Amino acid sequence: MDARPAGEALAALAVGVDVGGTRVKAGLVDGGGAVLVTAAGDTPPRTAPPRDVLVTLTGVVDELLGHPLARRRGCAAVGVGVAGLVDAARGVVVFAPHLPWRGEPVRERLSERLDLPVLVDNDAHTATWAEHRFGAGRGETHLVLITLGTGIGGGVLTHGQLHRGRHGLAGELGHQQVVPDGRPCECGLRGCWEQYVSGSALRRAGLEILRAGGAGAAALRTAAGGEADPDRLEGEHVTRAARAGDAAALAAVAEQGRWLGVGVAGVCAALDPGTVVVGGGLSEAGDLLLGPAREALRQHLLGRDHRPEPRLVAAALGPRAGLVGAADLARSRSAGEGG
Amino acid sequence: MDARPAGEALAALAVGVDVGGTRVKAGLVDGGGAVLVTAAGDTPPRTAPPRDVLVTLTGVVDELLGHPLARRRGCAAVGVGVAGLVDAARGVVVFAPHLPWRGEPVRERLSERLDLPVLVDNDAHTATWAEHRFGAGRGETHLVLITLGTGIGGGVLTHGQLHRGRHGLAGELGHQQVVPDGRPCECGLRGCWEQYVSGSALRRAGLEILRAGGAGAAALRTAAGGEADPDRLEGEHVTRAARAGDAAALAAVAEQGRWLGVGVAGVCAALDPGTVVVGGGLSEAGDLLLGPAREALRQHLLGRDHRPEPRLVAAALGPRAGLVGAADLARSRSAGEGG
Repeated sequence: MDARPAGEALAALAVGVDVGGTRVKAGLVDGGGAVLVTAAGDTPPRTAPPRDVLVTLTGVVDELLGHPLARRRGCAAVGVGVAGLVDAARGVVVFAPHLPWRGEPVRERLSERLDLPVLVDNDAHTATWAEHRFGAGRGETHLVLITLGTGIGGGVLTHGQLHRGRHGLAGELGHQQVVPDGRPCECGLRGCWEQYVSGSALRRAGLEILRAGGAGAAALRTAAGGEADPDRLEGEHVTRAARAGDAAALAAVAEQGRWLGVGVAGVCAALDPGTVVVGGGLSEAGDLLLGPAREALRQHLLGRDHRPEPRLVAAALGPRAGLVGAADLARSRSAGEGG
Repeated sequence: MDARPAGEALAALAVGVDVGGTRVKAGLVDGGGAVLVTAAGDTPPRTAPPRDVLVTLTGVVDELLGHPLARRRGCAAVGVGVAGLVDAARGVVVFAPHLPWRGEPVRERLSERLDLPVLVDNDAHTATWAEHRFGAGRGETHLVLITLGTGIGGGVLTHGQLHRGRHGLAGELGHQQVVPDGRPCECGLRGCWEQYVSGSALRRAGLEILRAGGAGAAALRTAAGGEADPDRLEGEHVTRAARAGDAAALAAVAEQGRWLGVGVAGVCAALDPGTVVVGGGLSEAGDLLLGPAREALRQHLLGRDHRPEPRLVAAALGPRAGLVGAADLARSRSAGEGG
């Protein structure tokens, strides 16, 4: 008999890391998805040598593995979510717009140093897994996650398994063309969905409110802590002004919601999920965003009178979803389970 | 030992049926996807009692089961593909725009009469399965099928399994909004993808060529067999004029191709298939359509410099794909295999 029963193996901790464009955030995560200890570092700039990001990454991992809690309870695996295109089967970061990594064999590099199973995946995929296991999509086998940050990230879960696609690159829902010759996108294309709903899109709406002047501009400056510099305006200031009841800000958030609902309707026609979870900074606008989004979804859902409506709900795990999911995926995989 | 080894069970035939808006087409299909005998009937009008379609359906199935070949070799299962929203798990046609069926328990009705396993699924799903098993997507585990008929039908295959979604309604790729407040769609929405690339969209382009007069209009009338009545113009007449070298028709088909490529790029960003198969009548334009489509796909593919490009190819099985796939899915399922 195995000296360590399966229950105890699952009770062991796992390290989860989220490698983002500005911060590398990590945590010791237990089998219930709770983050017990955290560590973090600044992400080296895009122009730094690729090795520098690995140094930061191994630094936070080592810090957590050396923690007394990890030593006492044991650590089953290390999972890394990366903001970029990742070939999860090979553990290679193919391309990450905000990182110096191009074709970087991250799993291999980490495995060389650690005597633990390592998983490397896209951060939106790991966040999708986290919301499915512990968050707003618990128990849902057909789930789509849409994260509204600077752009749109996404993940698709079908039959309880992540849909990574042929090369691990699936889930980029933000680059559907929704307006021909529309707003230019950082990806090089035009009219991408994320140009109409995202933190950046809301910020752009805020700049228009500032330019228009009047009550809306005043409310926005108040929400931004009296800040008059348009360069410092953030989407969250618009959300704050909307919460405070300003009409222009409310209209801007509702407009984002309508674009969200239109795009989600297309996703639902294509994939028929039971639940769509909306995360990222913009989701903090809550029902100011999701109310208009649900209405637009209802209006634009194909065959709406003849089908169950998908649930459209806010994410539950916040910005830690990526690292929690990475840890849990790594643990599940090392235990030979799904994901 | 079983008197009938597995090899022989697979060699048994299956009946496949494709219930479309105008015809109910059926065939006796062998384990290699070959259609050995066919039967067909007219689809009763949308206003007929739902039972009438069942009568037509059971008629063609009985005809094939009574055929000497079916009696000699045996029939393992009956598969039915239906042009509409189908809950495949329950075998219920939820909604079919061109049929009188609303919530019709087709599998139950058929099973009452037949001593055989019955499968009922969406016709685009069954066609996707057929192209995966015997057609242009053979060996591809991550496949998207796009059928360009009157509208756009679609199917998604991941890890070698059909992605049916939470309620069996996935694969409706034609109703992504690609133009805000764009052309009205029969589904009740506006600016749907299928309004810009489909047989109907090409027909509309042909009507514009007729209105413009001159060489293009003359070429189109020749392609239509001298027909001067715009009401009788079909998309295939435009394809024919393009094949004959008419500049206006060529431009119209190429424009359809560009819209195809733009949409496929969005599908690829979301789902990362290895192969996209294009079927339906419009696909008969071949490279006149697929050439411009591949170019647009290349231009619009997210991360195009950092990822493998998906194959974009014409379907191989033609209009029989739906019934071939239905038969094979029914046989696979009755043998306890995938799909």
